[in-house]
Amino acid sequence: MSDIKKVVLAYSGGLDTSVIVRWLQDTYGCEVVTFTADIGQGEEVEPARAKAEALGIKEIYIDDLREEFVRDFVYPMFRANTVYEGEYLLGTSIARPLIAKRLIDIANETGADAISHGATGKGNDQVRFELGAYALKPGIQVIAPWREWDLGSRESLMAYCEERDIPVDFSSSKKKSPYSMDANLLHISYEGGVLEDPWAESEEDMWRWSVSPEAAPDEPTYVELDFERGDIVAIDGEAMSPATVLETLNRIGGANGIGRDDIVENRYVGMKSRGCYETPGGTIMLKAHRAIESLTLDREVAHLKDELMPRYATLIYNGYWWSPERKMLQAAIDASQETVNGRVRLKLYKGNVIVAGRQSKDSLFDEHIATFEEDAGAYDQADAEGFIKLNALRLRIAANKGRSVR
Amino acid sequence: MSDIKKVVLAYSGGLDTSVIVRWLQDTYGCEVVTFTADIGQGEEVEPARAKAEALGIKEIYIDDLREEFVRDFVYPMFRANTVYEGEYLLGTSIARPLIAKRLIDIANETGADAISHGATGKGNDQVRFELGAYALKPGIQVIAPWREWDLGSRESLMAYCEERDIPVDFSSSKKKSPYSMDANLLHISYEGGVLEDPWAESEEDMWRWSVSPEAAPDEPTYVELDFERGDIVAIDGEAMSPATVLETLNRIGGANGIGRDDIVENRYVGMKSRGCYETPGGTIMLKAHRAIESLTLDREVAHLKDELMPRYATLIYNGYWWSPERKMLQAAIDASQETVNGRVRLKLYKGNVIVAGRQSKDSLFDEHIATFEEDAGAYDQADAEGFIKLNALRLRIAANKGRSVR
Amino acid sequence: MSDIKKVVLAYSGGLDTSVIVRWLQDTYGCEVVTFTADIGQGEEVEPARAKAEALGIKEIYIDDLREEFVRDFVYPMFRANTVYEGEYLLGTSIARPLIAKRLIDIANETGADAISHGATGKGNDQVRFELGAYALKPGIQVIAPWREWDLGSRESLMAYCEERDIPVDFSSSKKKSPYSMDANLLHISYEGGVLEDPWAESEEDMWRWSVSPEAAPDEPTYVELDFERGDIVAIDGEAMSPATVLETLNRIGGANGIGRDDIVENRYVGMKSRGCYETPGGTIMLKAHRAIESLTLDREVAHLKDELMPRYATLIYNGYWWSPERKMLQAAIDASQETVNGRVRLKLYKGNVIVAGRQSKDSLFDEHIATFEEDAGAYDQADAEGFIKLNALRLRIAANKGRSVR
Amino acid sequence: MSDIKKVVLAYSGGLDTSVIVRWLQDTYGCEVVTFTADIGQGEEVEPARAKAEALGIKEIYIDDLREEFVRDFVYPMFRANTVYEGEYLLGTSIARPLIAKRLIDIANETGADAISHGATGKGNDQVRFELGAYALKPGIQVIAPWREWDLGSRESLMAYCEERDIPVDFSSSKKKSPYSMDANLLHISYEGGVLEDPWAESEEDMWRWSVSPEAAPDEPTYVELDFERGDIVAIDGEAMSPATVLETLNRIGGANGIGRDDIVENRYVGMKSRGCYETPGGTIMLKAHRAIESLTLDREVAHLKDELMPRYATLIYNGYWWSPERKMLQAAIDASQETVNGRVRLKLYKGNVIVAGRQSKDSLFDEHIATFEEDAGAYDQADAEGFIKLNALRLRIAANKGRSVR
Repeated sequence: MSDIKKVVLAYSGGLDTSVIVRWLQDTYGCEVVTFTADIGQGEEVEPARAKAEALGIKEIYIDDLREEFVRDFVYPMFRANTVYEGEYLLGTSIARPLIAKRLIDIANETGADAISHGATGKGNDQVRFELGAYALKPGIQVIAPWREWDLGSRESLMAYCEERDIPVDFSSSKKKSPYSMDANLLHISYEGGVLEDPWAESEEDMWRWSVSPEAAPDEPTYVELDFERGDIVAIDGEAMSPATVLETLNRIGGANGIGRDDIVENRYVGMKSRGCYETPGGTIMLKAHRAIESLTLDREVAHLKDELMPRYATLIYNGYWWSPERKMLQAAIDASQETVNGRVRLKLYKGNVIVAGRQSKDSLFDEHIATFEEDAGAYDQADAEGFIKLNALRLRIAANKGRSVR
Repeated sequence: MSDIKKVVLAYSGGLDTSVIVRWLQDTYGCEVVTFTADIGQGEEVEPARAKAEALGIKEIYIDDLREEFVRDFVYPMFRANTVYEGEYLLGTSIARPLIAKRLIDIANETGADAISHGATGKGNDQVRFELGAYALKPGIQVIAPWREWDLGSRESLMAYCEERDIPVDFSSSKKKSPYSMDANLLHISYEGGVLEDPWAESEEDMWRWSVSPEAAPDEPTYVELDFERGDIVAIDGEAMSPATVLETLNRIGGANGIGRDDIVENRYVGMKSRGCYETPGGTIMLKAHRAIESLTLDREVAHLKDELMPRYATLIYNGYWWSPERKMLQAAIDASQETVNGRVRLKLYKGNVIVAGRQSKDSLFDEHIATFEEDAGAYDQADAEGFIKLNALRLRIAANKGRSVR
Repeated sequence: MSDIKKVVLAYSGGLDTSVIVRWLQDTYGCEVVTFTADIGQGEEVEPARAKAEALGIKEIYIDDLREEFVRDFVYPMFRANTVYEGEYLLGTSIARPLIAKRLIDIANETGADAISHGATGKGNDQVRFELGAYALKPGIQVIAPWREWDLGSRESLMAYCEERDIPVDFSSSKKKSPYSMDANLLHISYEGGVLEDPWAESEEDMWRWSVSPEAAPDEPTYVELDFERGDIVAIDGEAMSPATVLETLNRIGGANGIGRDDIVENRYVGMKSRGCYETPGGTIMLKAHRAIESLTLDREVAHLKDELMPRYATLIYNGYWWSPERKMLQAAIDASQETVNGRVRLKLYKGNVIVAGRQSKDSLFDEHIATFEEDAGAYDQADAEGFIKLNALRLRIAANKGRSVR
Repeated sequence: MSDIKKVVLAYSGGLDTSVIVRWLQDTYGCEVVTFTADIGQGEEVEPARAKAEALGIKEIYIDDLREEFVRDFVYPMFRANTVYEGEYLLGTSIARPLIAKRLIDIANETGADAISHGATGKGNDQVRFELGAYALKPGIQVIAPWREWDLGSRESLMAYCEERDIPVDFSSSKKKSPYSMDANLLHISYEGGVLEDPWAESEEDMWRWSVSPEAAPDEPTYVELDFERGDIVAIDGEAMSPATVLETLNRIGGANGIGRDDIVENRYVGMKSRGCYETPGGTIMLKAHRAIESLTLDREVAHLKDELMPRYATLIYNGYWWSPERKMLQAAIDASQETVNGRVRLKLYKGNVIVAGRQSKDSLFDEHIATFEEDAGAYDQADAEGFIKLNALRLRIAANKGRSVR
C-alpha cells in the first residue's frame, strides 16, 4: 500500500470524511489533499478549511461549483425529461460526475496518484465516483475506505476516533439525523432509519426543504418560466443564471409543498432500496419543460426522446455520465432543443404543479388546423380516408388470410 | 352509393348521431342498426332506444360494456404504466377498440355490410374506429359522414335538422357545453372552445368529475389497493370487479381533486391539439401500480417495460389495439406481471397521490441487503471493487488511447 | 386544375415521363420544366435534352448529382450500418430525398408552383418524393399522374401515345426489360415480372451489374479501404472522391459476383413486395464499415447504434430523410464516427466479402488485455468475481424468494 | 476453504479440467463430481469416464444433451434472428446456460454445495456459467480455479502436472491447437494465437468444419427447409429432430464453404477480442428464417423484432439467458412465431446462402395488390394521396413556421 504518494479526498468536513483523512494518513502514509465543494447542499463549506487544517492538510480545495453543476449537468439532463424508473429525478446521480471530474482535475494539478471518497460499498455513489474517475484518468488509483475497512457501525467509528484523538465534536454541533442524507442544489435524499420498511410512511419531520402540502399556503402561486433551447433562462420575466433559477424554484416550490417523492428503486449494485427525495425546483422544471416541448417539438422527435429517455436515465443513474454513449445520446438530445423556446405559466398549489399556459414563437400548434370549426382548406378531411385505408392495408390483408388479432 | 344495404352506427342518442341516422337513410337508402354502449360515460343509455325508434330504427343494440371495458382494455393497458407523451392516460384511445369490436360483432350478427360513426375527419377517433373495424373484418365498408358531408358548423347542422324535420330538442334538454367532450369510465376529455388558445388556463366550471384541489377536503383520505398479477382486485380489503374498482377510485379521486391534466398533444393525423383530461381513478391506479411494481419487479424487467412503454402507448393512441404488434407487446407485458401482487397504501390529498406504503409476499426488497448497517454476509462490499473495475475497463482502455469523454 | 402555372417534372427521358410531359401540358395547361439527374444510373442523361426540347420544354435542367448523392446521402446512411428488414441496403430509398430536394430547388429557381414525378400509386417512391417536397416547401403542389389517370397497362400507354403523336421510338431503341427497374450509383432494383411469384428463383439474365458467383474469377481479389470518420476516403491507398469510391467498389464487387439480394419486403403503403437488388459496392462498404467500427467504437456506442439502426432504416425507407427525427438521429450517429478511422483489408471471392484484416490508430483492441497469456497487471482476474457477484445479486435475491427463471 | 464438501465440475476430459480435478481435491479437500456433456462438439465423451475414474471420481455424469441444446436453446434464439454486434451467431454463448443448468441439476441430485468450471478470468464464459448457476440456485458456491490460482502459461500447467503425477498424455494424443477453441453443435470458435493481431488473416488450416469457398464444389447445392412456428422441422421434405436438422445443415453448409466469420467483438468483461467462428448450419438457418418471416410476418411485428433483437442478443452474450428479462422478451418473440410456417428453398454455393424461393400457406404476400399491373379494386391508388398528405402534415406545419430540415 506504500505506492500511493498523494490522494485527493472528497471531503465534507463532517465526522466520516474526517476519520477517512486520518485513516488514509495512517494506512497509506500518504499526503491527503482535501476537496470540498459547494454544490448547493445548504451548508457552509468554508468551515471545512479549518477542520482540514486541524488534520494537518496542506492542500485544501474549496470550490463553489453551483453554477457549473446546474449549467453543465442538471440542465443537459433535464433537456431529456429524465426520470429514473418513472419517479426519481436523479438528484444524487447527477452531482457525482461533477465531483469525479473535480477530483481528477485536482489530482492533475497537485500530482496526486489517487482519489478517495466516503461512499459505502453497497451504494451507487461509489460506482459513479469511480467510473467517472477511471474514464477521465485511467491510471488513477481509487481508495474506497468503506470497502477496505468497514467502519460498520457508528459505535466502531466513535471508538476509532477516541483511539486516534479525532475530535468527535465534528458532529456534535447538530443532532444527528436518523437518515442517511445527500443534498445538493437539485435535491435532498433520505435513506435508512424507519424508511427501511417500505410499508412505513415517511415522517413529516424528516423533510427539510419543503413544507407538507397540508402546511402550504391556501392560495396558489403563479410563476412564469422562459425557456431558451430547452433551458430556463428567466423567472417571471427576470433573467437569471442557472443556479439562481434552481435556487429560486426550490424556494417557491418548497413553500408550496412541491417535490416530495417516496420510492423503492433498483440500485446498480443489484438490490432494491427505499428512498425519499425532495426536489422542489426539479419537479417544477420537469413539468414546465414537457409543457414547452409539447408546443415546440415535432411529434416524432418527441416520441424518439421518450423512447431514449429511460436508457439515458439509467446511464446517469449507473454512473456513466462520462462515457461515449452518454455523449452520443446527448448529441441527439441537444440537437432536438434548438426550437424549445418560449414561456410556460404554472400554478403551484399544495404539492401540485399545474400548467396554466404555454406560448412560443416556435409553436407548432396551429389552431386553424386543430379546431373543430371549419377552416379554409388548411386540412382536407378527405385525406383522412386514404390515410386510414393505407394504414389498415396490412391489417386487412392479414385478416383476409384468416389471421385474428383478438 | 347504392351497394350498402345495412349499416351499424355507433349511436349516442345525441343530436349529431341522430342527424347521421337520417343522413345515412337519405344518402345511402340503407337500413341503419344503432348501437349504444354504456362504457361509464355517466349518462343513461336506455333513452337512446326511444330516440332510435323515433327515427325508424328496427334493430337497436344497447349494451352495458363497463366490465368488459375495464377488464379487457383498461387493465391490460395499465399493466404497462402506459402514458402517451409523458402525460396522457389514453382515456379516449382505449375505449375506441371496444366500440370497434362491438360494431363489427353486431355487423356480423345483423348481416350489415358497413359501419358508421360520428367522429370528425380531423381527429384520432376516426382512425381508431376504422383501423379496428378493418382489422377485425377486412371487407367491411366504413361510412364517416363528417368526412363525406362536412356538417361543418352548428348552424348548418341546425339547418339540416329543420329541413328534415329532425327534432332539435334532442340537445336542448341540457345546456350545450362549449367543449367537445368524450367520457367513459376512465376519463372525460375536453377540447375546443377557449382551450384552443394554449396560453389560456382552463376554466374551473369545465371540469365535471373532480373538485378543484382548492375545493377538496382539508383532511387526507387513505386508501389501500390490492393487486393480483398487476390488476387491482380489492379496495380497502373489499374485493371488487374491475369496473367497480374504477368507479370507486373515480369517486374517491374526484372528491380529492385528483386526476386533472391539461396538455398539448400530437395527433396521429399530424397536428397538435390542446386537451384537458379528468382521470381521477386512472391517476391513482398508475401511481399505485408503479409502487407495487417497484417492490415486486426485477430491475431489468422494469427497465425493459419502461423502454417499451412509449411505443405501446403510441400504438394505442394511434388506434392499433387490434394489431399483431400490440398482441406481441402485450405478451411480454403480461408475462412480467405474474409476480405483481401485494398491497399499496395511498394518501390522497388535494390533487396529490402520495405513496404511503407498499407490501407484498412477492417483494424483492431485502432490508438486510439494502441497509447501511452491518449485515451477516448477505453482501460482500469487496465485490463492488471488481464490479466497478470491469465496468470501467472499456472506459479506461479508451482513455489510455487518448479518447476524451468530456 | 387551372391554378397550376408551372410544374417541375422529374424527367428520365424515357417513354413514361415523356407521356407525362404531354399529359401535364394537356391536363393542366401549364408550363413544364424538366429535371434530369445523373445519379449514376448508368445511362447518358444528355440525350434527355433533345427529347425535352422535342416536347416543347423551354426550361431544361440536367445535373450531375453523383458526388452529392454519395457524399451527402449514401455516406451518412452507411455510417449507421443501415439495413432495412435485415437485408435491403436502401438503394432506391436514399436517392429519392436528393431528387425531391433538387425538384424543390428548381421550383424555387423557376418560380414553379408544383412538382411532378412518374412514380406509381402503389409504391414507396411517391411517398418519398412527396414527403420530401412538402417538408422542404410546404406550399408546393404535387401532381402524381399515375394516381390521377392510371395509365395502367402498357397497351393503354401506347394508345395514348398514338393519339397524341408522341413518338414511341423513345423506348424502341432497346428491348424493354420485363422488370420494373431503378438504378443509381448505389444499386439497381428489379421488381415485377416473374418475381411476382416469391417461390420463383430470379433469372440469371436479369442482373446487370454483377456476374454470378459461378461466373466470377476463380482467384480472389484483395482490396484495402481507408476510413476517415466513418467514410471511405481511399481504395488501395489511393484517395478518391465519394462517388469514385462507390463506382470503383461497384466495379470490383460486380466482377466478383458480390451484392445480389432477393427479398420480400414490407412497403410503407402496406403490402409486401418481392424485389431483387444488386448493390456490389454497398455490400462491400457495409462489411468494411462494421469491421472498422469493431476495432474503433466503444462497446456501448456500438450497441446503441445497433438498437437505433432499424428505426433509422425505416425512416429512410418510408421517406422521412427530410425530417427533424432523421436529423436528430443523424446527430447521434455522426457524433459516434469521430474515431472511426483506419484501414480494412477485404478478400472478395465469388459473392463473398471476407474481412482479412483491420487496423487503426484509434483501435481500442488491446492484445495485452485480451490475450489468454499472462499479462503484466493490465487486468486483474480477481475483479471478475465481484463483477459477476454483483451482476448476479438481483437474480439471487429473486431465486431466494422462490422465483423461477426456467 | 474447508466448508465445501462436494463440487460438481464441468469436465471435458482434457488436460486442463483434469488438472482442475486434482487441484480441487488438493485445495478444498472436497469430493468432486464430474459432468461431461455431448453438445455436439464432435468428440467422444465416453472416454471421459475412464479418465475421471483414474482421478478417483466416484460420481460421474456423462450426458447426451444435443437434442435439448438445439430444441430449448438454439431454436428459441434463432426465432429472433439473433446476431451479436451484426456478426456473431452466439454459438458459445447459447451453450453455456445449458451447462449451467445441468451443473445445478446435478448439484441438487448429488447434494453438492459448489460447482466449478475451467473458464478463465478474462472471458465471457465464467460470467455465463456463474450467472446461470446463481440464478438457478442462489446459495450455490462457485469455484473458478483459473481466477484463484492462475495456471497462467502452459509451462506452469505442465510443471503442476509433473509435480502431482497427473498423466500429461491426456493431451499428447493429438497435436495441440495453437488456438483456444470451443465447439458445439452450433459452431466452433477460435481465439488466440496469430488471431491476436486483428490485421492478420486467419490461416486456412485453422478451420475444421468447413472447406474454404475456393475448395467448395463448383456446382451449387439446393436445399428446402420446412418451418413450423419459426423452427425448422424438415429438410428436403424429410422430418427431423432439431439436433438432426442442425447436424445436417452443418454438413451441407460446411461442404459448401458456408458459415465462416472473422470478427472483433466486445466482451462483457470490458475488452475487445478477435474471434473466428465457423457456423455452417446456423448461417443457413438465419438466412432461411428471415426469408420465411419475410413472407409470413406482419410488417410492424417484424420491425419490432428487429429493434428488440440487439438487446436480446446482448442478454444472451452477457450470460442472462436465465433471467426474467430474457423470459419476458422470449414471450414476445414466441408470440410472433405462430404464423411463421412454410418452406424456403436455398441455393448454397461456395460460401453463399442464396434464397431461391419461399412459400407458405400463411403468406401475407398478395401479388394482386403488389403488382404493377391493374388490379380489380384491391387497392385504390387515390388513397395514397391522403396517406401522404396526412403523414406530411406535421412537416408542412413546421416548414410553414420557418423550420428547416436541411
